[in-house]
Amino acid sequence: MSEAASNAGARRRVLLVGAGGVIGRAVAAALAERHEVIAAGRNSGALRIDLSDPASIEAALDQAGPLDAVVCAAGNVAFVPLSQIAPATIETSPFGIGLRDKLMGQVNLALAAQTRLRDGGSITLVTGVLSEHPIASGACASLVNGALEAFVRAAAIELPRGLRINAVNPTVIEEAMPDYAPYFRGFEPVSAARAALAFVRSVEGLQTGQVYRAGW
Amino acid sequence: MSEAASNAGARRRVLLVGAGGVIGRAVAAALAERHEVIAAGRNSGALRIDLSDPASIEAALDQAGPLDAVVCAAGNVAFVPLSQIAPATIETSPFGIGLRDKLMGQVNLALAAQTRLRDGGSITLVTGVLSEHPIASGACASLVNGALEAFVRAAAIELPRGLRINAVNPTVIEEAMPDYAPYFRGFEPVSAARAALAFVRSVEGLQTGQVYRAGW
Repeated sequence: MSEAASNAGARRRVLLVGAGGVIGRAVAAALAERHEVIAAGRNSGALRIDLSDPASIEAALDQAGPLDAVVCAAGNVAFVPLSQIAPATIETSPFGIGLRDKLMGQVNLALAAQTRLRDGGSITLVTGVLSEHPIASGACASLVNGALEAFVRAAAIELPRGLRINAVNPTVIEEAMPDYAPYFRGFEPVSAARAALAFVRSVEGLQTGQVYRAGW
Repeated sequence: MSEAASNAGARRRVLLVGAGGVIGRAVAAALAERHEVIAAGRNSGALRIDLSDPASIEAALDQAGPLDAVVCAAGNVAFVPLSQIAPATIETSPFGIGLRDKLMGQVNLALAAQTRLRDGGSITLVTGVLSEHPIASGACASLVNGALEAFVRAAAIELPRGLRINAVNPTVIEEAMPDYAPYFRGFEPVSAARAALAFVRSVEGLQTGQVYRAGW
């Protein structure tokens, strides 16, 4: 059995960004059964982290101490009808919100993790079903999700020291349907607990460069 | 036969961004057999356009006059080893070059076109094989290409007035191999003339939201 496979039952120290969110709480519960979870979030958690601020990301990872995994279940994007979006710089475009926060926030989290994770550690980012199945007003979200999935495939082949990186792509979350249902008519939602399994699979499995779909 | 299908033989006015590049010259030659091609580029062409400058994009489209199609065969990204990229803002990150130029340049081109193209017109963007098949130092390019392909799928369902949008995803171009071969060992290149066919198919076909692979 390889060293990695023999490590299957090891207790890991996991930094979970977005631990206070709908998905994050389910991921925290699933991982806490076997691992030490350090909760991080914009407004809650043991560590505060603002994905749109690279210095905040590096500070959170440094404060977390030795880590075997970084998991992200957070990221903001704007939902705006395409017809209402004019050409603009990243600074002023509605696309800029997602580019700074959900996209570069998670890319920067991965870049900060590549020099700080223990050997063989893992990075798990979050995308979403709009990467493949668009909805009205969802162009910014689709763009960001597609960017992250291609980044994960690319980063996986360059990460050093046996580090791994994957993305979880959940469809709309059941517990969020009170807010999201009007945008996702006809989409079968997935419970946060089922979506959390994909995060666990990324952390405890051995694959890298994967996009794990959850619920679709 | 539908109105669109009966329009199959129509002569179109096409703005071609990047007309002076390796791919652009082949696209111009292919389209010029049946259409009026208005060449645009950063340093050459009838119209000057800087994809990283939204005002330049809007000015070029306004100067071009009535258009049936906008085609892009241009866009810059940085090639940097992942290990050499630290967390940073979009303004200072190597990822920012691609986000501003190849990504938001083409998104802004599409946004400018959605209010200016004639009814039933088309938008064709360019991505690249790294969206699916990563190479060393290619994470920025992969990210940008993946973003564009998801954007195209999303924009297609929201564009008004029968407007269409597609992307062409070529593998490495044969004529560019003197420069790119060391990065693309083992990749079978496609000639610019063959890649140009995918652009023609986007302009003269009826599909929308497609990613046309060229040579892979």
